Amino acid sequence: MVTQIGLIGLGKMGFPLAQNMIANGFEVYTHDLLPGLLERAREAGLKAYKDTDALLAQLSGRKVLWLMIPAGPAVDHAIEKLLPQLQPGDILIDGGNSYFEDSVRRYRYLAERQIDFLDCGTSGGVGGARHGVCTMIGGKPEVFAYCEKLFQTISVPDGYLYTGEAGSGHYVKMIHNGIEYGMMQAIGEGFEMLHKSRYELDLKAVANVWNHGSVIRSWLIELAGNALGKDPHLSGLRGIVNASGEGQWTVETALREGISIPVITLSLLMRYRSQEGDTFSGKLLAALRREFGGHQVQVKEGGKG
Amino acid sequence: MVTQIGLIGLGKMGFPLAQNMIANGFEVYTHDLLPGLLERAREAGLKAYKDTDALLAQLSGRKVLWLMIPAGPAVDHAIEKLLPQLQPGDILIDGGNSYFEDSVRRYRYLAERQIDFLDCGTSGGVGGARHGVCTMIGGKPEVFAYCEKLFQTISVPDGYLYTGEAGSGHYVKMIHNGIEYGMMQAIGEGFEMLHKSRYELDLKAVANVWNHGSVIRSWLIELAGNALGKDPHLSGLRGIVNASGEGQWTVETALREGISIPVITLSLLMRYRSQEGDTFSGKLLAALRREFGGHQVQVKEGGKG
Repeated sequence: MVTQIGLIGLGKMGFPLAQNMIANGFEVYTHDLLPGLLERAREAGLKAYKDTDALLAQLSGRKVLWLMIPAGPAVDHAIEKLLPQLQPGDILIDGGNSYFEDSVRRYRYLAERQIDFLDCGTSGGVGGARHGVCTMIGGKPEVFAYCEKLFQTISVPDGYLYTGEAGSGHYVKMIHNGIEYGMMQAIGEGFEMLHKSRYELDLKAVANVWNHGSVIRSWLIELAGNALGKDPHLSGLRGIVNASGEGQWTVETALREGISIPVITLSLLMRYRSQEGDTFSGKLLAALRREFGGHQVQVKEGGKG
Repeated sequence: MVTQIGLIGLGKMGFPLAQNMIANGFEVYTHDLLPGLLERAREAGLKAYKDTDALLAQLSGRKVLWLMIPAGPAVDHAIEKLLPQLQPGDILIDGGNSYFEDSVRRYRYLAERQIDFLDCGTSGGVGGARHGVCTMIGGKPEVFAYCEKLFQTISVPDGYLYTGEAGSGHYVKMIHNGIEYGMMQAIGEGFEMLHKSRYELDLKAVANVWNHGSVIRSWLIELAGNALGKDPHLSGLRGIVNASGEGQWTVETALREGISIPVITLSLLMRYRSQEGDTFSGKLLAALRREFGGHQVQVKEGGKG
């Protein structure tokens, strides 16, 4: 059974997750490339090592390493860095938001080297990472079974699931995030209509009442109420919404497989739209309306009227 | 304070709501036009009258009448039927899913006749109607105050809100349903991708784990899990989704006010799409592809190849 963990990546999810594991009795040895994150971890009493060799030297027996780093090449680099120090049977868990096809590739690559790999989708935000997440785990059943206690411990009760073969954990998490994009966009649009209505609505109170007995009660509505409680008109924010990959992968997968998911797709596109103050497409439409009908256009200062 | 209610409409929401009110100590006198619903109500021990005059004769003092009938002309007809029997100061509550502009109109019409009117958006489904709903109430503050105990009693704790002037209760409920359309469509699309994935996923287990600690935990995901538990591939259902008006009104209001709510709009359009097995637009696209490029088309039996 797992008692020691090497945790690589002390960012906004990794740091509280390490604290979660420690609070639940695991010996946790951590690493990050950024000195500032190492420092914060040490100040919080974590065992934090500036290189992975020193970290690995702390682990005995069948080693379990948890990667909690940004998706993409960083995961491959971390794997390459760790590989020479690993023994057959050691276990790498990617708890980040990796693309499921990358996880399948890494599973096969590591299997050839007799290293076991689990892909673990982790949801619940920063607070969840500290106090209980939701985890979806793919990989070999016996490797999952070896680590099950770890997943059970860091998750809320009933909050972990073995989803099947390699990649399935990250696939299920990717879809979770696709649904999240659509739910968030729908909630945003609804509150836009409350905000712009003729009524003087207390948006926090609306979110709050909706979370008591209505059909749309949910954690996202609760979070909306919290945000509106702090800033009733959200005047301290700009409506620019970034996307960290999962929505795009959901849509790319749907396109590749020929699956119609219009609302999730449009939710992603609306995030892209939010990232641009003005658009070339909008300018072209304005130009066309002027060309064919003499419609009024808004000209930038210094531009041609 | 309200102790007696006349409840008009014993359908899927009205019947359990009457039971809810009775269980909470109100004297409830009910009516429906349909003999079958009257019969069911009587069998359940409700006081049910086949005409409203007999019902109204049971009420003393400032009368409170709760309408729980389909939106549209039925509400106006019920009001016209009741009006001659009402006294100044009597209160009509429309607890159904009326369009908020209709509620504003009815409020004004009744105000001219010194009848008070509250518009009450009611959410929570049939189970909620019986055991605790979420209510959003618009109208005059003093009329709301007179009826507050009633709303408090039939709602879950913290599950009722006075939203402001006439129409605001139904406006907030309309937006709630618009958000619900978007959330449901996003959830549907996500599960479509789970269902069509290369993995053999237990969809009920996925819904269940998502409801324990994930960002999208919600009552709708819980209901999805329940449905998938009864029928793992939903093979007993057709994917035809009706719409009872609120989504359409949300979109119409957005169009009139010039508010951009693309995902809620598209969710409504996808419901319309679901109601057609085949579409003329799809046929025309197939025809055009054949015309310009000799692409293969699927021809109906007996049709021209």
